[in-house]
Amino acid sequence: MRRLLLPLLLACSSPLAHAAEPPPQDPPAAASVAPAITRVDEASIARAVAMRDAAMERNEAWMLLESLTTEVGPRMAGTPGDAAGVAWAQRAFKGLGYDKVWTEPVTFPVWERRRETGAIVAPFPQRLVLAALGGSIGTRGPLEAEVIEFPTLQALKAARAEDVRGKIVFIGNRMGRARDGGGYGPAVAARVQGAAVAASLGAKALLIRSIGTSNDRIPHTGTAASLSELLRDPALAAKLERTRPNKLPIPATPIPAAALSNPDADLLSRALERSRPVTVRIDLDVGWKREDYTSANVIGEITGSERPAEVVVIGGHLDSWDLGTGALDNGAGVAITMAAGHLIARSGPRPKRTIRVVAFANEEQGIYGGRAYAERWKPEVEKHVIGAESDFGYGRIWRLDAAVKPEALPAIDQIMQVLAPIGVARGLPYAFGGADLSAMRAAGMAIAGLQQDGTTYFDYHHTPNDTLDKVDVADLNQNVAVYAVFSFLAAQAEGDFGSKAAAPPAPAPDRRR
Amino acid sequence: MRRLLLPLLLACSSPLAHAAEPPPQDPPAAASVAPAITRVDEASIARAVAMRDAAMERNEAWMLLESLTTEVGPRMAGTPGDAAGVAWAQRAFKGLGYDKVWTEPVTFPVWERRRETGAIVAPFPQRLVLAALGGSIGTRGPLEAEVIEFPTLQALKAARAEDVRGKIVFIGNRMGRARDGGGYGPAVAARVQGAAVAASLGAKALLIRSIGTSNDRIPHTGTAASLSELLRDPALAAKLERTRPNKLPIPATPIPAAALSNPDADLLSRALERSRPVTVRIDLDVGWKREDYTSANVIGEITGSERPAEVVVIGGHLDSWDLGTGALDNGAGVAITMAAGHLIARSGPRPKRTIRVVAFANEEQGIYGGRAYAERWKPEVEKHVIGAESDFGYGRIWRLDAAVKPEALPAIDQIMQVLAPIGVARGLPYAFGGADLSAMRAAGMAIAGLQQDGTTYFDYHHTPNDTLDKVDVADLNQNVAVYAVFSFLAAQAEGDFGSKAAAPPAPAPDRRR
Repeated sequence: MRRLLLPLLLACSSPLAHAAEPPPQDPPAAASVAPAITRVDEASIARAVAMRDAAMERNEAWMLLESLTTEVGPRMAGTPGDAAGVAWAQRAFKGLGYDKVWTEPVTFPVWERRRETGAIVAPFPQRLVLAALGGSIGTRGPLEAEVIEFPTLQALKAARAEDVRGKIVFIGNRMGRARDGGGYGPAVAARVQGAAVAASLGAKALLIRSIGTSNDRIPHTGTAASLSELLRDPALAAKLERTRPNKLPIPATPIPAAALSNPDADLLSRALERSRPVTVRIDLDVGWKREDYTSANVIGEITGSERPAEVVVIGGHLDSWDLGTGALDNGAGVAITMAAGHLIARSGPRPKRTIRVVAFANEEQGIYGGRAYAERWKPEVEKHVIGAESDFGYGRIWRLDAAVKPEALPAIDQIMQVLAPIGVARGLPYAFGGADLSAMRAAGMAIAGLQQDGTTYFDYHHTPNDTLDKVDVADLNQNVAVYAVFSFLAAQAEGDFGSKAAAPPAPAPDRRR
Repeated sequence: MRRLLLPLLLACSSPLAHAAEPPPQDPPAAASVAPAITRVDEASIARAVAMRDAAMERNEAWMLLESLTTEVGPRMAGTPGDAAGVAWAQRAFKGLGYDKVWTEPVTFPVWERRRETGAIVAPFPQRLVLAALGGSIGTRGPLEAEVIEFPTLQALKAARAEDVRGKIVFIGNRMGRARDGGGYGPAVAARVQGAAVAASLGAKALLIRSIGTSNDRIPHTGTAASLSELLRDPALAAKLERTRPNKLPIPATPIPAAALSNPDADLLSRALERSRPVTVRIDLDVGWKREDYTSANVIGEITGSERPAEVVVIGGHLDSWDLGTGALDNGAGVAITMAAGHLIARSGPRPKRTIRVVAFANEEQGIYGGRAYAERWKPEVEKHVIGAESDFGYGRIWRLDAAVKPEALPAIDQIMQVLAPIGVARGLPYAFGGADLSAMRAAGMAIAGLQQDGTTYFDYHHTPNDTLDKVDVADLNQNVAVYAVFSFLAAQAEGDFGSKAAAPPAPAPDRRR
């Protein structure tokens, strides 16, 4: 059955060009000599098949995730859970028999959530369930004001300051459900830019409808401050500069910002439909600590037997938001990639190249771990033969995107031969690859996107509901199989995938989370 | 299509005996003369059919529920929301053109929830999401103790005091999902009796796994104290008497009691599986006020044209728990029955008998409204020709149970003719009929159980997630159709349904909620 699929799949895999996202406008320069084709030997393919089937029978990622969520729980950057997570990851790598385990420091400012409440005060007094957005400044006691609703961020941007000034802005945009999570990007702009835009119009605070797809009365947090976003709009950034409180870390919002649970967003909209003014009170005891915190990227390696300095890098971020236990975002990614490395190690002799698994620090509040990693390893980008990152929860991998050089596509086709029987289809010729590896990608690293099914991911993402019970053990096994097969075969390949130091300075990574 | 179903349905409806729950052991005494058969005239049937079809096109119950949940929200007994709910119900009855609208006082002690937190302290510090159970005493500051887990209430009852003394008891029993909500009864005993049993063994506090069917990280509250439950076990009641704090209202628990969300119950179980002791801290700032509160049953009547003193009583409880907005429990029941009465009134001349719709006070904390109603109206139980209560959320009605005299079964068959096309099947020859009418039922009132589909009800029941978005407007319309048809045809029937003053004093109503 599995073998029967191969001819069809091979026929479908066209020789797509190497490209970063978005697809390139210019064709690659013609080489003066025919370039070598990247391929994998048949014995390695056979070992990958066995590894894949073994992964589907083991529950190692689930056991790691069960341990992490039970013994550590939430791992928000700069909290005791962050330190506990770093210690756990070191213990886990060592316990799994990784050849080398080390940490690399990552320093960042620390945001705290202490207490948060909200309520409609008039005309219909009712509690509102909300969560401060990460990076929000506090309200310094109760803040009470009339609410003005905008259906979208775009509508807010088009508003007149005299209509907004002194009010609480409420952006009601709804996120759509999709397997690839495609509803997130359009919706999350309200969370990332909303406070800055509202502040530039004189608003006192920002409320958004949660960026999530469920109707649970549970709010979705996430960062509200992204200077890189703002810098795309210099006029807005200039306005913001005038309103930004002094001496706060860069990611601080200019005004307090929180997300309502979706039923509470409905409620507020219904109140506004029938009566004006509607007055809301929010009380956010949150904010930034004075001192930076130094956490760590935790790295485990299965050392290559022939080319140990060349690495296939996989991983995910170890930090989480504080509300849940970080099972989906992103304990799963850490557990999947840790288990994949271990599976490779126990399946036979060490691979030719090194398998490096990175548990990144503080992705959620600004990709600090990914940027620190790139800062340290960018000079060796050509030795990072390819990377792939797991940061989309628990769903099965259904598509493999690959941003590799054209000559490496035969090796990708070989990887696809092994993965197709477990539900993975050939995807796009470019890949985002994940936030943590985005700086390395920008620096020139070849990257694969192992796309997980995210149909229900945003029901739980960044909420208290991000807990172990949402995770299916068989789904995690499939993810482990894909990561193990992919990274093992990449490590075995004769020839590279096109990693090459980027000529211009790398652009600032996208800090949206 | 609709008509085609009739012969089959009529063939299936056997002449079942009049019975309270459980089915009677003794056959009814033989009558000396052949009793009159209760039947409905064909014109009334035709009007009921038109009413049913009209209901399916209208959205009145949904609009009432939208108004109640938006403009009032939670209506916990004795809170400002209770008073706002009573005022809303009076306005709503009047706005719908009910012929008479009045209130009847209901007095009860008041329980307050102010603040509640929980955490695993050691060995794995983590937040626990919990909600105090209704009636719980407070902890008077943080209470920290080792946890001992029992899989069921039965296991706790079998425990030795020396193993329990000084600990926090955790009962981990799981509620099963079922269309008829049949998983609730077996599971809820842990909530209702757990604190008393644990206290009798010297425990410091009680935690339970939420009595609910979802895996949302949302706790389910509900009463933890039921003296009627305890009085079934005199030995336990005697032990409890010694531990009960003085001068507290009857429903107070002897020790603090709270429900963990189901993911938190999982977490605590996992911690206990791998490590002992596990220490938990709970801090419940909840408790009983010194002063009683007087709320009201709100009653609206469509006055009968021929026998106005004879009433068909329908309704639901207006109070809710505090965490959600009481959309499902039980705004829906109030909205459905209010809309049903209105539909009858606007569909033609006044019915022969009176349709009485009751929005009961404080069902959740001890059926105070239902008991007050019975206290007032029990002398007229024979004039309450039949009753039916809506208190199971938003699901479609799929079964009609009827505890009526055998001679009234032909009328029930006629009602079934009209209801079968909208998905209602003939049910049992006995009926619980709902908590609020349980005292009237015990006093001898004939009763029908219009069973709603409760497959997902306990995902949301007694949680913050009890909000309007869970309700489907078409489902509410079907409920209105069933209540309107049922109560109109009962009001039109020639002959009664067997209501008759019960000979012995009525047993204490079941106070489980």
